[in-house]
Amino acid sequence: MDSPTPAQLPELLHGLATTRAIRRYTDETIPDDALRDILFAATRAPSGSNRQPFRFMVFSNGPRADQVKQLIGTGARRLWDAKRTRDGYDAGSGTDQASPKARMARTMQDYVDHIDSVPVLVLACLIRYRDPSPSEGANVYPACQNLLLAARALGYGGVLTGFQGLVEDELRALLGLPDDVALSATITLGRPAGSHGPVRRRPMAELVFGDTWGTGARWAVDPPGTAVLSSRFGPG
Amino acid sequence: MDSPTPAQLPELLHGLATTRAIRRYTDETIPDDALRDILFAATRAPSGSNRQPFRFMVFSNGPRADQVKQLIGTGARRLWDAKRTRDGYDAGSGTDQASPKARMARTMQDYVDHIDSVPVLVLACLIRYRDPSPSEGANVYPACQNLLLAARALGYGGVLTGFQGLVEDELRALLGLPDDVALSATITLGRPAGSHGPVRRRPMAELVFGDTWGTGARWAVDPPGTAVLSSRFGPG
Repeated sequence: MDSPTPAQLPELLHGLATTRAIRRYTDETIPDDALRDILFAATRAPSGSNRQPFRFMVFSNGPRADQVKQLIGTGARRLWDAKRTRDGYDAGSGTDQASPKARMARTMQDYVDHIDSVPVLVLACLIRYRDPSPSEGANVYPACQNLLLAARALGYGGVLTGFQGLVEDELRALLGLPDDVALSATITLGRPAGSHGPVRRRPMAELVFGDTWGTGARWAVDPPGTAVLSSRFGPG
Repeated sequence: MDSPTPAQLPELLHGLATTRAIRRYTDETIPDDALRDILFAATRAPSGSNRQPFRFMVFSNGPRADQVKQLIGTGARRLWDAKRTRDGYDAGSGTDQASPKARMARTMQDYVDHIDSVPVLVLACLIRYRDPSPSEGANVYPACQNLLLAARALGYGGVLTGFQGLVEDELRALLGLPDDVALSATITLGRPAGSHGPVRRRPMAELVFGDTWGTGARWAVDPPGTAVLSSRFGPG
């Protein structure tokens, strides 16, 4: 595959800046050739020493896929129920149905209520060649991000979650996963349904420092028109 | 920022498939507006509950930047010296100077020997709001991947490493990092020097399964012309 010149790549930059979490999908399935392109992009991601210890299990249709989606649905509702209470989604500004907090709560509730019927569910796995560590994710999450960006490039959308963590034993038993395989993430994918807002993030100067911790780099200024996150209950 | 239509995004897919690790740079500095665009893309990445616990420290020029680059250089050479021996880079096929293994060893030696003078060094950090865990990287490594992809979109290149791990105490002292901040990665960036081969990865069917662990999805077939990794000593 020839390398493109920089001049051919403006849409790469634009795609990076406009890919957001998508949690509502149409019923449309994702055809095999689109899945291939999405997962191909995932497998191009870097990893330490180019070992590529990441693996992706892709569940679309069929009895096994249905079982996995149902299990993940159980995990998702457990996680969200606990979070909804713990993080006070129904308190404070959350009592105002028009608040970002209340909107986020509705989005999440709708997402976990319907996750059993997402078009495609992907389990991102990691074959461990060392003891578990906080940095092992460098070998799997870049590939997950490539996957989500490629989905967007083809008109699909998705979101990375940790739902598998709440039903891990059941998943391992169902899938017969070897002991050295870590379950790193659950990604759901589909054709976006309805309207979705812009990517909303904190101002860049809060996140990008120069040579002094806590001090925004002088050039770290959001481009005009950037949607800024004013609350951590943003839509992701 | 308006969302592009899928038809505008073919170069996003192409960019994902052709971004590779770049370890040799020209002396060219990266101008502020390019750094802004690269780090802006990084900060658009997803994170759990959109908390954005990632932070990037960007070191270009000046005494502090030089100190950090020198420290990372020390860590890099420690890591590579140990790895070169442990992984047998100078044994077996590594004794053939034309072998992929020997080429990789030369590339790495050259990289760690010159890392003190890379144009830009980025430390990717994570403000921990939970105990350290193998999944915390989901909140920082997608942003690192966005950073590397955006660099490519602008004609630069880089690579993600764990060199900071070998000089962590010294770095923390130099930079006065709070205890709850994890040092997740070191990224070097610059204008690529010389020629670079294609992205070389394992065949997709080894990495992408359907609903059965270890069995490649029937559609997981590399596109024609894909450069395949036949040895784990590939160029990354």
